[in-house]
Amino acid sequence: MSAATVAGKLRAVPEIRKDPVTGRWVIISSDRARHPEDFVRDPVRPKGMTICPFCAGNEDRTPPELLSYRPNGGPEWRVRVISNKFPALRVEGDLGRSGDGLYDRMNGIGAHELIIETPQHCISLGELSEKQIEDIFWAFRDRVLDLRRDSRLRYILLFKNHGEAAGGTLEHTHSQLMGLPVVPISVQEELDGARRHFEYKERCIYCDMLRQELQDGSRVVLESDHMVAIQPYAPRFPFETWLAPKAHISHFENSDAALIANLAWMLRIMVRKLERVLELPAYNMVLHSSPVQESPLAWYHWHLEIIPRLTRIAGFEWGTGFHINPTPPEEAAQFLRDAVS
Amino acid sequence: MSAATVAGKLRAVPEIRKDPVTGRWVIISSDRARHPEDFVRDPVRPKGMTICPFCAGNEDRTPPELLSYRPNGGPEWRVRVISNKFPALRVEGDLGRSGDGLYDRMNGIGAHELIIETPQHCISLGELSEKQIEDIFWAFRDRVLDLRRDSRLRYILLFKNHGEAAGGTLEHTHSQLMGLPVVPISVQEELDGARRHFEYKERCIYCDMLRQELQDGSRVVLESDHMVAIQPYAPRFPFETWLAPKAHISHFENSDAALIANLAWMLRIMVRKLERVLELPAYNMVLHSSPVQESPLAWYHWHLEIIPRLTRIAGFEWGTGFHINPTPPEEAAQFLRDAVS
Repeated sequence: MSAATVAGKLRAVPEIRKDPVTGRWVIISSDRARHPEDFVRDPVRPKGMTICPFCAGNEDRTPPELLSYRPNGGPEWRVRVISNKFPALRVEGDLGRSGDGLYDRMNGIGAHELIIETPQHCISLGELSEKQIEDIFWAFRDRVLDLRRDSRLRYILLFKNHGEAAGGTLEHTHSQLMGLPVVPISVQEELDGARRHFEYKERCIYCDMLRQELQDGSRVVLESDHMVAIQPYAPRFPFETWLAPKAHISHFENSDAALIANLAWMLRIMVRKLERVLELPAYNMVLHSSPVQESPLAWYHWHLEIIPRLTRIAGFEWGTGFHINPTPPEEAAQFLRDAVS
Repeated sequence: MSAATVAGKLRAVPEIRKDPVTGRWVIISSDRARHPEDFVRDPVRPKGMTICPFCAGNEDRTPPELLSYRPNGGPEWRVRVISNKFPALRVEGDLGRSGDGLYDRMNGIGAHELIIETPQHCISLGELSEKQIEDIFWAFRDRVLDLRRDSRLRYILLFKNHGEAAGGTLEHTHSQLMGLPVVPISVQEELDGARRHFEYKERCIYCDMLRQELQDGSRVVLESDHMVAIQPYAPRFPFETWLAPKAHISHFENSDAALIANLAWMLRIMVRKLERVLELPAYNMVLHSSPVQESPLAWYHWHLEIIPRLTRIAGFEWGTGFHINPTPPEEAAQFLRDAVS
């Protein structure tokens, strides 16, 4: 047993618990902050002072590499994927599903990986080349194709927290992957809603929506051969943006090269427009795709959601899921269409 | 038509829109911030400089009073309720439900009120007397009993944003009421989940949960004759706290004097404990109760949720409803039980 494994075993095993009323699963990850004094509210971080383990030249300072793209087999890489040094979930062990009276729990089994999107320390996606962004999406795809072979993993979440206000805690440009033994509740709600529509109409609700959006045009920001970027009809947040394939496709990992090229082109322009209009906002990006163990689904349609973090989150929204959005999506779309990129 | 009404009519009517996939309703309230330049990310607010319209002596500076408690009929008040000067919803008009292809919308009809919890400018609930907190809950109850006569209002949301990190934008100690023509999605999910349990077992899931919690004890913080305060089994946030009546009761507004007295006593101690353990955290408080037009429900059980705002909200939680909580509720309960109040 290696030293790393021993250290891993000494840490508390994270636990996943289910809220019995709503069915929402929560990771209880006591390895991270746990005691009252650990909740530093305004942490002071040294900037540009310490050595960044994710920059080119410091590859030996990261956990082992899971994937990298090195053109011509040289030492230089374009994208690297590594395990998270402080994972919220562990790959080793079994799920150990069990009950406790009314309650359900399982061990915090899963994958938690970091996608280092570029060797450069801190750069916006909008400043990267299209090719570089394509590589990031290829890395997403390759990791999903690898991880889905683990049948314990039901859902693979790919997301990016850009900027401190968006919960980003590392400066180096990166995104994250979490392989989960459960489907996150918001995704499950989308799956359920989309399935209800399909059962009633035998059509994909996202296909219906995109058809209507393209016809109407008022909320469309960008369109290419295979992709469209819209402000959704009922956005929770100002300038909430969705990027979706025009043709039906339920699983991101089934996307082909043409679609990924379109996605990279569109995301790059979209980020540039958002950064111009909103003056370099913090944002979150979440890829919504189908559960990885499912065959292609006729009712679900993968898409990428971008949420700029502009408004301070009014508290009651946490408790209710009810949002007040001060910016009509039609106006946001107009601002974004007009913005140079 | 008064000048105020004319001004009201000149403003854009807020709109409520439904996400067609999840069924989530969103208020599009373009009266508030709307353009990119309006999203000031770090607003500088004068503190203690300007006159607070909510302090004693400035009653003529607020919108008209809807309710007040004035002991002995004198000019001094303990609690006042007024209309929100910048409401997210309007009382006047009809719902105007309509469709737009796939989409559903209605006018932003509803009530948005401010409960001024004390004449003192900025004081913690924990510093108020039990009697004063009781009065706040009586004001909640009285407003709900009045507003539910308006059959357009399906749900009445009572909540408090304490501190800037919790979305509080007014310093003066207050909470808010929103009368909504729809049921917020998180509440609807609780109602649906609780109903499923009831249909299967013919028991209230909250009653079952509280019974198990009281027996187990590890997550119980406080207990009185009629109320209990717990850390829930699957909390989304560290030190998330629920206060619930021990006996089954679906609607907060049906609570009697003994229950409200217990609630006030418990909330005061709970806030004092949280403020001691977490060093005066910002927090949100949301009252979860049944839709006001419903008769008493056998499956739902009102409760009050308190969420301290300790962790910076990791971005992907927005997109997924999936939370990582670094503090096991059993440990949080221990800290809170041990804290002096």
